[in-house]
Amino acid sequence: MKLKGKKLLGRSTWGFSEDVCVLASAATAGPMEGKGQLKDRYDKIYPDLYMGQDTWEKAERKMLEDAVQIAIQKANLTPQQIDFYLAGDLLNQNISASFSAKTNQIPLLGVYGACSTSMLSLSLAAVLVDGGYANYAVAGVSSHNCTAEKQYRYPTEYGGQKPDTAQWTVTGAGACVLGKGGGDIAVRYATIGKVTDLGIKNPFDMGSAMAPAAAKTIQTHFADTGRTVKDYDLIVTGDLASVGLPIARELLENEGYNMGQKFKDCGLLIYTSDQETFAGGSGCASSAIVTYGHLLKEMEEGHYDRILVVATGALLSPISYQQGEAIPCIAHAVSFEKRQQKGGS
Amino acid sequence: MKLKGKKLLGRSTWGFSEDVCVLASAATAGPMEGKGQLKDRYDKIYPDLYMGQDTWEKAERKMLEDAVQIAIQKANLTPQQIDFYLAGDLLNQNISASFSAKTNQIPLLGVYGACSTSMLSLSLAAVLVDGGYANYAVAGVSSHNCTAEKQYRYPTEYGGQKPDTAQWTVTGAGACVLGKGGGDIAVRYATIGKVTDLGIKNPFDMGSAMAPAAAKTIQTHFADTGRTVKDYDLIVTGDLASVGLPIARELLENEGYNMGQKFKDCGLLIYTSDQETFAGGSGCASSAIVTYGHLLKEMEEGHYDRILVVATGALLSPISYQQGEAIPCIAHAVSFEKRQQKGGS
Repeated sequence: MKLKGKKLLGRSTWGFSEDVCVLASAATAGPMEGKGQLKDRYDKIYPDLYMGQDTWEKAERKMLEDAVQIAIQKANLTPQQIDFYLAGDLLNQNISASFSAKTNQIPLLGVYGACSTSMLSLSLAAVLVDGGYANYAVAGVSSHNCTAEKQYRYPTEYGGQKPDTAQWTVTGAGACVLGKGGGDIAVRYATIGKVTDLGIKNPFDMGSAMAPAAAKTIQTHFADTGRTVKDYDLIVTGDLASVGLPIARELLENEGYNMGQKFKDCGLLIYTSDQETFAGGSGCASSAIVTYGHLLKEMEEGHYDRILVVATGALLSPISYQQGEAIPCIAHAVSFEKRQQKGGS
Repeated sequence: MKLKGKKLLGRSTWGFSEDVCVLASAATAGPMEGKGQLKDRYDKIYPDLYMGQDTWEKAERKMLEDAVQIAIQKANLTPQQIDFYLAGDLLNQNISASFSAKTNQIPLLGVYGACSTSMLSLSLAAVLVDGGYANYAVAGVSSHNCTAEKQYRYPTEYGGQKPDTAQWTVTGAGACVLGKGGGDIAVRYATIGKVTDLGIKNPFDMGSAMAPAAAKTIQTHFADTGRTVKDYDLIVTGDLASVGLPIARELLENEGYNMGQKFKDCGLLIYTSDQETFAGGSGCASSAIVTYGHLLKEMEEGHYDRILVVATGALLSPISYQQGEAIPCIAHAVSFEKRQQKGGS
């Protein structure tokens, strides 16, 4: 179906024309991720957590710079040809995004949605390409276990103990280049979420906090597009992990959606069972390295024709937590679809 | 001139059709701002820095919630009619934006560009309305002197001394509702900036750091649109203040642009000369309360037909400063223009 000028569907879903394409994507990953389930899927794996830099923050930035550069190269483009860079991360003042934009010198649109930033940045990139506001746009996000630990929790070296509901921030970065035509996979829909808050205050249980946001955005996506579970080969959340995914499943079941085996979580796909990551992976890189490193390849290899990536974000800060606030959460969903005319424009 | 499908002009400027309108805007301000030059221009002035809340962070959020609510009311709309809320602030993890989105329950697109977030959020809101991705969008930002002080500098109560090049973070919030037709002022162009960094590392001299970014974005805007200084009645930067504005003026003069008396800075328009604010105002609210509270009214009152607001942002964090990094800066420019057919659709 070709959309005829109607871009806003239902409440908060954008429909894009079928030539808004993924031209290339890339994922870079830390040493632990490089030994995980998807170790053969990353474009670059670093031997240690410093990535040749002298601080973890600079290391995170390096991963993002590398992912963006590799994605642009794979698209046979140069940074000068990319019109806009939509980027965000978890660090205070989005410094991985801003400093990497200093390096690549692409006009920057900084975005923030905690771990949902992966699909937030991609959704807006798709708007720009679809609407003619950009010929090429690149979306990128990063997270680093050590920078997130020290910022959100305790000094990393302290090694504070955690409950089993806690999650492990993924060390990695992902980037995706969009353009009109010239790719096998289209970005067809993006559903933008509302902030939900069911009163959960425990920052060591993000999965429970984020599950309602994921369920709500999936429901909104179905309502806005007229689609349902059977229209997708895979529906994957960003970082609900082992605690949150069953909650989202139950919430959706209560609304009449039987999610079945095609409902998965990126945070559960990254590590092997003998890697100690508590409930599973989290962070902007969780959905980004799984989607940009693995899932888009799975689509190209013919395993899936249509997937919905529902990136989840917990929008708290240490200050909001200390002031007794519950954790506001959000989820943004993007539908990726195999194009029928391969590589056509 | 009606643009015919061409949305990306030159390097990084978007051209919008002439019916992308400001439906309403609002500005809320702290007690000191409420005694300044523009004291008669704000929609709400709070008697103290707590705004009826028990922390400064909640006070900042309250100002943003109020500005958004007032702007929506002035547009004769309800929050349920607004499709998207584009918001950002200076606080770690953008909590003013996220928590206010929990209150208004409008689907949230979180953005971050430090003090440039005012025009970043408005630029993207204009894209959504222009391209048919939203019927109505609201852009909002906030800053609060006490939350910024404690986060970026010293504990606020400590009262650390500052050099004269330092700036005073504005306490306030601004919001602007966009839609197609129905307003007297159009948003015609938005120029998105690149990150510049001339090696300045002193966080007590943001004006010097940001001036090159402002000059560069103004030059890009002129190059992309074919316009020059004479095409505007006013060109106003966000928060260069008394140190940065003359630097930007000189940089532009070196490139052949004589900016003359129509080149001003929002950070110099807020306070009176006997209010102790060092070089002048800064923060997301600097450009927001001046533009949304004052300048758009000046246009409606017939004082200006075309203005260019160049919001400037210093993208540093305390961590990047502590690690010896220079301050990366950015500026985003939006052109507001009086419509010839008043109120027409």
